[in-house]
Amino acid sequence: MQHVNDGKAFAAQRGAAKSNCPFKNGEMEGNGSSRSDSQDALNGFEMRGLDEEFDDARLKLYRRNGRRSRSRSLDDIRIEMLPRTSSPSCGRKSFLPEGMLFGIDIGGTLAKIVFREPGFLAQGPKTEQAQRLRQYFSNSDGRVGSEDERLYFSDPLGVFGGKMHFLKLETSSIDFLFEILRKERQTSPHEVTQWKIYATGGGSFKYEARFKDLGIKVRKSDEMETIVSGVLCAIENIPDECFTWVPPEFGGDVDDDMTLVRQTIQVEKARKPWLVVNVGSGVSMLKLDEQMTVDHGKVGTYKRVGGTPVGGGTFLALGCLLTGAKSHQELLEMAAKGNAKAVDKLVGDIYGEDYHGLGLSAHTVASSFGKLVNADLRNNVSMEDLAASLVQMISWNIAHLARLVACQEGARTIIFTGSFMHNNEISQRKFAAAFRYWSNGDSQALFMRHEGYVGALGALAMSTLIRQEHTH
Amino acid sequence: MQHVNDGKAFAAQRGAAKSNCPFKNGEMEGNGSSRSDSQDALNGFEMRGLDEEFDDARLKLYRRNGRRSRSRSLDDIRIEMLPRTSSPSCGRKSFLPEGMLFGIDIGGTLAKIVFREPGFLAQGPKTEQAQRLRQYFSNSDGRVGSEDERLYFSDPLGVFGGKMHFLKLETSSIDFLFEILRKERQTSPHEVTQWKIYATGGGSFKYEARFKDLGIKVRKSDEMETIVSGVLCAIENIPDECFTWVPPEFGGDVDDDMTLVRQTIQVEKARKPWLVVNVGSGVSMLKLDEQMTVDHGKVGTYKRVGGTPVGGGTFLALGCLLTGAKSHQELLEMAAKGNAKAVDKLVGDIYGEDYHGLGLSAHTVASSFGKLVNADLRNNVSMEDLAASLVQMISWNIAHLARLVACQEGARTIIFTGSFMHNNEISQRKFAAAFRYWSNGDSQALFMRHEGYVGALGALAMSTLIRQEHTH
Repeated sequence: MQHVNDGKAFAAQRGAAKSNCPFKNGEMEGNGSSRSDSQDALNGFEMRGLDEEFDDARLKLYRRNGRRSRSRSLDDIRIEMLPRTSSPSCGRKSFLPEGMLFGIDIGGTLAKIVFREPGFLAQGPKTEQAQRLRQYFSNSDGRVGSEDERLYFSDPLGVFGGKMHFLKLETSSIDFLFEILRKERQTSPHEVTQWKIYATGGGSFKYEARFKDLGIKVRKSDEMETIVSGVLCAIENIPDECFTWVPPEFGGDVDDDMTLVRQTIQVEKARKPWLVVNVGSGVSMLKLDEQMTVDHGKVGTYKRVGGTPVGGGTFLALGCLLTGAKSHQELLEMAAKGNAKAVDKLVGDIYGEDYHGLGLSAHTVASSFGKLVNADLRNNVSMEDLAASLVQMISWNIAHLARLVACQEGARTIIFTGSFMHNNEISQRKFAAAFRYWSNGDSQALFMRHEGYVGALGALAMSTLIRQEHTH
Repeated sequence: MQHVNDGKAFAAQRGAAKSNCPFKNGEMEGNGSSRSDSQDALNGFEMRGLDEEFDDARLKLYRRNGRRSRSRSLDDIRIEMLPRTSSPSCGRKSFLPEGMLFGIDIGGTLAKIVFREPGFLAQGPKTEQAQRLRQYFSNSDGRVGSEDERLYFSDPLGVFGGKMHFLKLETSSIDFLFEILRKERQTSPHEVTQWKIYATGGGSFKYEARFKDLGIKVRKSDEMETIVSGVLCAIENIPDECFTWVPPEFGGDVDDDMTLVRQTIQVEKARKPWLVVNVGSGVSMLKLDEQMTVDHGKVGTYKRVGGTPVGGGTFLALGCLLTGAKSHQELLEMAAKGNAKAVDKLVGDIYGEDYHGLGLSAHTVASSFGKLVNADLRNNVSMEDLAASLVQMISWNIAHLARLVACQEGARTIIFTGSFMHNNEISQRKFAAAFRYWSNGDSQALFMRHEGYVGALGALAMSTLIRQEHTH
């Protein structure tokens, strides 16, 4: 297969691929669902799901661009948005609003919370409050909620203007969050009314009324928008955020992904488009690109270009069903001890040797879990081997889809985010090795330290956008 | 998304996509495997894995085309094969050799057997033998082996020249087959030495020595080659072989795939390329195309363009692990009674409503099995719901990959084969509905009555090719 690096040919190919492809983007639909044709129309739309206040702020931007009508059809929106000049990023020159800030991303499995404790506060009610909030999480049994202390950083003089805390809890235990908020409201009602909460994810819609009942105003942002904002915000503003896994300089078996070593990557200058593969309960794939504008400028754009419902929720649910494990972390620990080859059917199991006709080695997986069609093997299987095969199957399936989508979209930088990737060295190594192998080193799978919090961080970053617009 | 039906633009797009794509085709590799670069070189190679006798026959064809050298590099082969004039099909004018014929496809999970009982035999040792062979299978407990009696047909005056029987057994019970062969060899040694056995699948390599030990000569053919031959042979020669599922003419809910009705399809004239998606233990995707030759002719070609190890073996193994079922058929029956929505996390479960931003309805599956991240739901889950979600997840994942590959290759006719599809109305309906929806009716998912036997039928059809060449 040829590798043509000419940018123009590349762009032409992508354009052609899109106009000729007989298929449209689509999700798996349950029976009897009402399919909306607006999905396609909205795929290129960059600001969505904002509540009234946000929408007003954005509308000012439109008006500055000479567009005054507020009633617009979906097609109009797509056209209107093209000349937009602010990319969805908080940017190095931007600054967050003052006071206690929260970015909350309430997903299908986990609710992720970023909170910014203002940096220059004297000891007083607000820092006590921050301590109490962290205390609530550290007092929970670790399953309901916990702080990712390794992700904490302090940036009082920089973009973030304070101390950044990262906490998560299971969405099914969301009552725990509302209980904390209720307590805080009783303890320090004045401070709580000043909180600024920026929310995203499906739960920001589902639980909106619960926040309102507590008298807390939540500003909602679209899930895809906040993923993009969060990725760009973290890459631009958090040092050493991105990394990958590379073969060691000396020694190491090139075929063994366990010999790869971690390497920090400066991704800012990597040629667009990038593909962001966010692996949460399900998977969304977003293409980040740069487009020329009609007034000879450049604008950052994004579009959802793929996805699959086989994601982190599937891993956790199937893994717990199969092994009796209780958490994502426990499953990963089991998987690290297991041997997927003990349950997967390999080419060698079927052929007794390599499949020379297709050049497949005897070690290639022909059928995930395929050895266990045999009842005797099923009855004596080790839980660790099941976990190892499951994480490999789901990871590889995501990598495979990401590769097809990256190929279709011409992306050579693939950034994996989402809580499935958290502490998940197994998948990281597999993705890094797979993309290196498939592309002969021409494309790269990247990972982020705050991978699970890009949505929450992006919601927080939205506050900057609003603020920028208000100060114009 | 636009739908351009212009053939030239289509071809140009496909060519461009291939030369620009930064990725090569590849399979999931186990750690420490030896990856062979010959895979790419061989992808366009149309005759592989033949044993000496077959290779000699094919070499005659080469020599007729003016190529005499037998030592050729992999690159040479690719070029040499282009002017080949016989497409991998048995063709309507061809005829099978006389006597008792067997096509055996020994896969990772199932061994599929087609046997042709010559049509004009007077009552005598050979028909008794055929009766005994069928008897062996009907006497087995149905799990070890069974005859698919609904697939039987008789064609004494046509291409097949006899009665066609279709039998299968689990590859793990392959000893049963060798036991039958051993008995037959004792009962009627003369007839057995005259048997012609054409084998394919990994087991034709793995168990070659076992056949030899019984003094039975087996002619091996490459697995991909026989799938293609079998598909074309069945489509061209078995009436009403292909079908699909379409919305009923009157009434029926267009969004409910359960209202679709079965319709026979004449696929022979459908514009190439076609994509054959063979779902066995794992999945292989083959592009069938027509190419112009340098001497102004046309030639049928094929290439393996995709695959995934998440296939029928995965369904059977995971299904049995999760539900305690014992067979593919039992799992499908459970799935038909189950409700996948009881275990899948839907957009509505996360958002509480539709996800308007992306135009996804509340019924869209966001995370397969995602509801079961909750331990209480896991502990009270119904086995039928698990089976329903599993068949939906694996089917949809295959459809999704097939769609991306079909889009990449410009194929609008997608033919699903392999034993996973057997009696599997659930997956058939989902594939039919999904491709109709994704392509706005511009592409079609097709199915075959002898779907599980295309490899075995293709192996049998290889005998014709040999015979044709010998009679030239």
